[in-house]
Amino acid sequence: MSADEPVTMLTTDECWAMLHDNEFGRLAFHLADEVHLTPINYAVDKDTLLFRTAEGSKLLAVVMNPDVAFEIDELDEHRARSVVVRGVARRLEEDEQHRAEQVPLRPWVKTPKYDVVEIRPTEITGRSFDLSRPWLHMIPEH
Amino acid sequence: MSADEPVTMLTTDECWAMLHDNEFGRLAFHLADEVHLTPINYAVDKDTLLFRTAEGSKLLAVVMNPDVAFEIDELDEHRARSVVVRGVARRLEEDEQHRAEQVPLRPWVKTPKYDVVEIRPTEITGRSFDLSRPWLHMIPEH
Repeated sequence: MSADEPVTMLTTDECWAMLHDNEFGRLAFHLADEVHLTPINYAVDKDTLLFRTAEGSKLLAVVMNPDVAFEIDELDEHRARSVVVRGVARRLEEDEQHRAEQVPLRPWVKTPKYDVVEIRPTEITGRSFDLSRPWLHMIPEH
Repeated sequence: MSADEPVTMLTTDECWAMLHDNEFGRLAFHLADEVHLTPINYAVDKDTLLFRTAEGSKLLAVVMNPDVAFEIDELDEHRARSVVVRGVARRLEEDEQHRAEQVPLRPWVKTPKYDVVEIRPTEITGRSFDLSRPWLHMIPEH
């Protein structure tokens, strides 16, 4: 990739560093034959991601089809960095749910009862985009 | 919904206002039997969303299965607001591509040739989450 290439790939280590640094992302999952997308609060637990979901949530469709994709991003004036995880989701059994207590995964919003879902990554891809955003430069004094 | 309910639904008008205010979101789409997720730059064109994608991009899998979901969000210390659009994607024909010239949809990153894809929403859902994030309050002087 040449030095003036506007898109650069992140290394796997850089992707995991971004996953550790963030706590808010978006999960895409199958619900019957539709694709659904929802923001989630997550935490890294070793080589997996964990999130909580309210009992009875449509997110539990991952039990029927565990194929999921997850995305986080960071955006500033000069570049956008995005990490996409493709992976396999699994609802944790009761005797594994303590894993959620050992990571900074606390409910943002109070709801009575949670399930804990694990995403085991099968593919991690990170990209950094240098933003040309030419119209920004068209604004005087910007 | 009670006044102390931490999740409130946005009205459809509020969702469209957020869609107009932003230019960066994430698109979930089917690629064969997998769900994929990618950040995109988009613009509102009347009651649709438009985005560009490089010729030959895997995003053109939407031609095979037009069922998509799209998400934008805004996050600050006190609340997260998220809008999710479910809809039908369609690659614009050559004689329709001028629509992309009439909206603030400019390539962030220079690539040689683009296709323009339209998302026609079938369902728009917006939620505002009051963030309890109790651990923030555990940091002295925060």
